Formats: sequence, structure tokens, C-alpha cells
Amino acid sequence: MPLHVVVAPSGFKESLSAEQAADCIEKGVLRAFPGSVVIKAPMADGGEGFTRALIGATNGTIHPVTVTGPVGQPVPAFVGFLGGCTEPTAVIEMAAAAGLSLVPRDCRNPCLTTSYGVGELVRAALDGGARRILLGCGDSGINDGGAGMAQALGVRLLDATGKEIDRGGAALTKLQRIDLSKRDPRLSDVRIDAAVNWHNQLLGERGVARVFGPQKGATPEQVEELAAAMETYAACIENATGLDVGSAPGAGASGGLGAAVLGLLGGKLHPRYDIVMRYLTIDDYLHDADLVITAEGSLDGQTPFGKVPAEIARRAKTAGVPVVALAGTIGKGVRLNFDCGIDAFASILTRPCSLEDAISSAPKLLARAAEDAVRMIMIGTTLRTPTGKVG
Amino acid sequence: MPLHVVVAPSGFKESLSAEQAADCIEKGVLRAFPGSVVIKAPMADGGEGFTRALIGATNGTIHPVTVTGPVGQPVPAFVGFLGGCTEPTAVIEMAAAAGLSLVPRDCRNPCLTTSYGVGELVRAALDGGARRILLGCGDSGINDGGAGMAQALGVRLLDATGKEIDRGGAALTKLQRIDLSKRDPRLSDVRIDAAVNWHNQLLGERGVARVFGPQKGATPEQVEELAAAMETYAACIENATGLDVGSAPGAGASGGLGAAVLGLLGGKLHPRYDIVMRYLTIDDYLHDADLVITAEGSLDGQTPFGKVPAEIARRAKTAGVPVVALAGTIGKGVRLNFDCGIDAFASILTRPCSLEDAISSAPKLLARAAEDAVRMIMIGTTLRTPTGKVG
Repeated sequence: MPLHVVVAPSGFKESLSAEQAADCIEKGVLRAFPGSVVIKAPMADGGEGFTRALIGATNGTIHPVTVTGPVGQPVPAFVGFLGGCTEPTAVIEMAAAAGLSLVPRDCRNPCLTTSYGVGELVRAALDGGARRILLGCGDSGINDGGAGMAQALGVRLLDATGKEIDRGGAALTKLQRIDLSKRDPRLSDVRIDAAVNWHNQLLGERGVARVFGPQKGATPEQVEELAAAMETYAACIENATGLDVGSAPGAGASGGLGAAVLGLLGGKLHPRYDIVMRYLTIDDYLHDADLVITAEGSLDGQTPFGKVPAEIARRAKTAGVPVVALAGTIGKGVRLNFDCGIDAFASILTRPCSLEDAISSAPKLLARAAEDAVRMIMIGTTLRTPTGKVG
Repeated sequence: MPLHVVVAPSGFKESLSAEQAADCIEKGVLRAFPGSVVIKAPMADGGEGFTRALIGATNGTIHPVTVTGPVGQPVPAFVGFLGGCTEPTAVIEMAAAAGLSLVPRDCRNPCLTTSYGVGELVRAALDGGARRILLGCGDSGINDGGAGMAQALGVRLLDATGKEIDRGGAALTKLQRIDLSKRDPRLSDVRIDAAVNWHNQLLGERGVARVFGPQKGATPEQVEELAAAMETYAACIENATGLDVGSAPGAGASGGLGAAVLGLLGGKLHPRYDIVMRYLTIDDYLHDADLVITAEGSLDGQTPFGKVPAEIARRAKTAGVPVVALAGTIGKGVRLNFDCGIDAFASILTRPCSLEDAISSAPKLLARAAEDAVRMIMIGTTLRTPTGKVG
């Protein structure tokens, strides 16, 4: 009988996309055991690749649309529609309109960058007849709490003089009142489900400005300015809607875009993998699998908190399928992953080397590691003594 | 049923002795699968540790003896006698009397260092009543072709004037004639079996002076001087005995000591692992094993040529037992090892790091790697689909 292997890696930061990682692992599996049936399910999170992953998995369609980028430039973006849905369901990713990679390095100032283009993507989805919108969050280059997105959809953010405030996170310090009367009326009839990192919140010490501001180019002063702006913004949302977005799980996702989805667009937030894995039908694949191989750049004590290998392993464990995790770096606290359902792991490294060398050799190393893991597993199938479960 | 694991590693140069390596691997195996029965068979070669390994395996005895060191200093050495032998069998290792570690760094001149003390060890063995001597070769600090050893046993090495030449490899350029008439007569009644690296020869481009001279501190000029000295030496041995030691397999072992064993002491040379593994009774252990774990500092295309993992794997393959090899570095040509019987391998590394870091973390990394390998193998025992042999 052939071995059925589900290959469900994350991408390896700075070296391999999830698709490339899946290809490498497939290559290694087939080298070790040529008759294997390999099903590749490269994992997206809510960030770059979210739309294409869901559209690819459902044989949906992708439609180009030009929107306003994070520094005001026109940006070629896209809206997808899922295949095989009776209810027209659009898929958009915020990173396509306001991602960090759209912010030129010398313009990385999250006080000024805007999510306005994300609102234009939502509008394009509504124009396309969507009754439901799946909105991927991640890889953002903004920290405006989704204010720009809301403005693009007719929400008016007013200062003390009743004038619309400028775009960008810092301008929110001047926010006095939110007027929802001109909001795009179609929003009342559409379901918006945002895929977010559940651990990101809007305010406080672990709030979006303090945790992610520096990555997006904010100086320490700007971080504090943005943190204060988010406080003002949350207070105004509560005044206008009665909703407290300040500590809602996921409201801090994508520079606070989650707060606007929840507070100003009437949408819902979901842990990102609940959405991703449902549409990538990972549970269906697991049903027939003998083995799952997942992978990520590093595997450590943080992995159980929302990283791909742990999310895959939890589902595989439910399905009773063993899980191998491959990683460039095996770090502190990695044993915690056994409880998530990861049965064994291995580093892809084969010699002392620098991080740069590891990154540039990642495709070869990952294929090699997958081959070695399958060879190791195959030893188990030939053991003389029947053995019990691993301790 | 418990898992029966034979743990048979080499040492890891500059970080772990074979015994320590075996302890680390045992620890990892027991962490992954607490019920395992682990049999540790740390592998010696002919060098440092040869005597203690064979004496340990046979419950023999070890006797101290002071001999002349490689730079003429008195050195505390030892002679072992195997346990459980009807024929009194001594075990000596040349490294105990003329090893590189006995040559102070500022005296590393293989033109001058001598194997005289090895002859004294042989004498001590004869004094102890040995009818057979197992002589381990390896880790030598000399390049005198075993001339010193022969001298210590009464062989006279004479120059053109009929005078005894000085000790050390370079003096052999003056050798004119070998006189065996005063050789210790007991040598005619004792069997000497030397455990050597079968690939080391005395003369030529791949001869002992050119290949090993530089490691022992020879300058390029000294290398050529020693190579010429070995030519003269081999010619004189042939004149005296009719034996051609110049290209005999193993005659170049331990700075040419093999040549003297073969040509001047009437001994035999054997591939070192034929002797080591016989006395470590590895084949008996394999008989009941489910799995063998071996290890060495590096695993590559050279491994099949006389390194521990390949030697262990060949024997395990004959016994039908699967073999895992762990190594710090997985190098070029590693696939050749599959043909030797190594079924799967893994590096002990878990992150990009320097060689120094890898060396200092080796105990932890090796235990971790053994645990991970067993966990991986245990997955194979739980696979849903019965599978064939690995491709």
C-alpha cells in the first residue's frame, strides 16, 4: 500500500513560500519512498497569500482592482470569489492594499500610513455582489486602527471642529466623534468574517502600537503617540456604537484593523486558522492520511500559540494521524509541542553554518530533512518487536 | 515488548569519548521510549582506548608499566590481559607509549620521535606470559616505521660503519643493514595481531610520511626526508627478511609501525574493526537487537571506508537489524552509506551555529538527536497503512 502523506507547511521567512516549502518536502518524501501519495496543503495565515490560497483550494476566481496604497500611491490589488459557494463569498487580504511590503523602506512611518485601500477592496467586493466577505489580516504596514478602511466605506471621523481628520494613525489623536450615518448601506446586508491573530489586542502594554509599531518603522516617541491615538479611537468607537474594542481578542490585528471590522463595519473576528484550515479542507485531507509533515522556520515554545505546525498538529491529533514537524531552528521550550500533537521533529540543518547559509540552502535542506524523516519513520515499520506508543 | 537498542557510537573528536557518546544516546532513547533496553557498545578503533575497551568487554586485567615515551621521557603506560581466554592474550595500544598526545606541542618533530616504548610494552606482555598479543594501532605521534619498537626488542639497525643508528624516523636514512640475530627469541613463539587502518601504506604518494607527517608536525622538507627514510627502511627489511612491506595494506599504520610488526616481529596485520568488533562481541549484541544507533562526528562519503558507522552498519545489515546514524555534520556523498546498511541518518544540530558551539553543546545535542530519532521511528510503528520497505 502506498503511504499517504499530507504536507502542510508554513512558509520559511526570507527563504521559502509555503508552496515552495511543500514542493521541497514532497521531493524528499518521494526520494525516501517513491510510491507515496503526497497531498500538498501549503498553509496560509491571514497575510500575503491568503486570497490565492483560498481561491486555489476552491477553484474560485480572482479579479484585479486598483486601490489606494498605504502611502497614498495607486496599488494593483485583487479581490477573489470562492468557487463552489451558493452564497457569493469574496476573499480579500488587507496586505494586498496596505501591506508592509507596499511601504517603501524610506516611508516606513506608521503614523502616516493608511488602510484606506482595504476599504476600497471591501467596496469592490460589495460591487461584485458579495454577500459574505472573508478578510485576511496579517503582514500589515499600517497602524491606523482600520480608520482609513472605515473612511473609504463612508464612516466619518471628525475632529473638534467637525472636520474629517487626516489619514494615518497619528491623526486619530484629534478624533472627537465618529459619524456612521453615511456608512455604505450595503454593509448592513453582508457578513464580514476576518481571519486574525487572536492574540493581538488594540490597547495596553501588549497593544498593537507597542508590539508591532517598531517593526513598521515607528520611533519610541511615535509608538507612544500611536498608543495614545488608539486609546482615543477606541473611546470614540465606544461612544458611537457601545462596543468596547480595546481588549477584544484580535482587535489589534493588522495595525488595529480588527477594531474597525468589529466596531465600525459590523463584522466578526475569528482565529485565522479556523478560517484558513476550513477552506483549505485540511480535515478532509487528514481523513485519509497516514502521516502529516508540517514545517516552519522555527519550532519552539511559542509554536503552540497560533503557529502553523501546532494548528495542523491539533487537527491531525483529532483525526488520529501522526505529525512530523521540520524546522530550521529548534528552540527553547520545543517540548510543549508534543502536547499539541506533534509526535517528532527534526531540524533541517546538517552542519554548523550561519543563518545566511541556512537560508540560502533552505530548499535543499528541507527536501533532505523530509527524506531523512521518512527514512527514519520507515525503520519503525520494520521493527522486529511490536512496540507500544512512544513515551 | 520493550525495544532493544544497541548503541554503538564512535567518539566525537574534541568533544565526546565513545563512552560519553553512548551515554548521551542512551539518555535520549530512554526519554523517547522509557521502557527500552539499551545495550551500550562504545566503539574503539586501534588508538587511544583500545586496551580499556577490550579489557572492559572481557573482564580482563590491566597492569601498569613505565616505558620510554616518544621524546625519550618516561611514560606511565599499561598492558592488559583479556579475561576468559585459555591462551594468555595481552592487549596493548601503541598510543599509550608513542601517541601524539604524549608529544609536547613544542616537540612535534616526527623525524625524532620514537616508537621505542611500544617495544617495551611488547616486552612487558612477553614478561607477563602472553602467548598472543593484540596490538592496537592509531593516534600515533611518531614516523619511525616502528624501528624504535624493533630496537627495543633486540633488532639491530646498523649504518654503513656497522654502528646502531639513532632513534627517530630521520635516522633511518642512514640505515644500511638490519641484524635480526639478537631479536628477543620469545617473539618466535608468540602470535602478534595488530589492529590497523587497512588503508594506510608505508611508501609512495599515499604513504605514511606524506599523509600523516604534517599532522604530526613535519615541515614539507621533513615530510620528504621521512618519505625517503621509509624507502631505505623498506629496502633493508626486504634484504633482511625477503618481505616487501612497502605497499602491504596497513603497513603504514601508526607512523609505519605496521611495517615493523609485519617485517621484523613476525606479526600479522588486520583491519582494526575485525579485531575490535570481535572482542566487543557486537555480533552477539546484534542478535537480539531491534535497532542499532551509531554515531560519529561526521558522516559523509568517506564513512564507508573504515569508519565506525559503516562498520557497524555492515554487521547489523548481516544480522537484519536497522541502523540509524547520528552525526554533527552530514557531508558530501552521504548517500553512499545507504549501501553499507545505514537506513537513516540525522544531524544533531538544531540551529545555525559555529563549530565551536556545536562542539561545546555536543552532549545535549546528541541526546536530543537520539530522542528525536526514536520518536520518529516510533511513528512508523503506528502507521495506519502497512507499507513496504523504504525506497
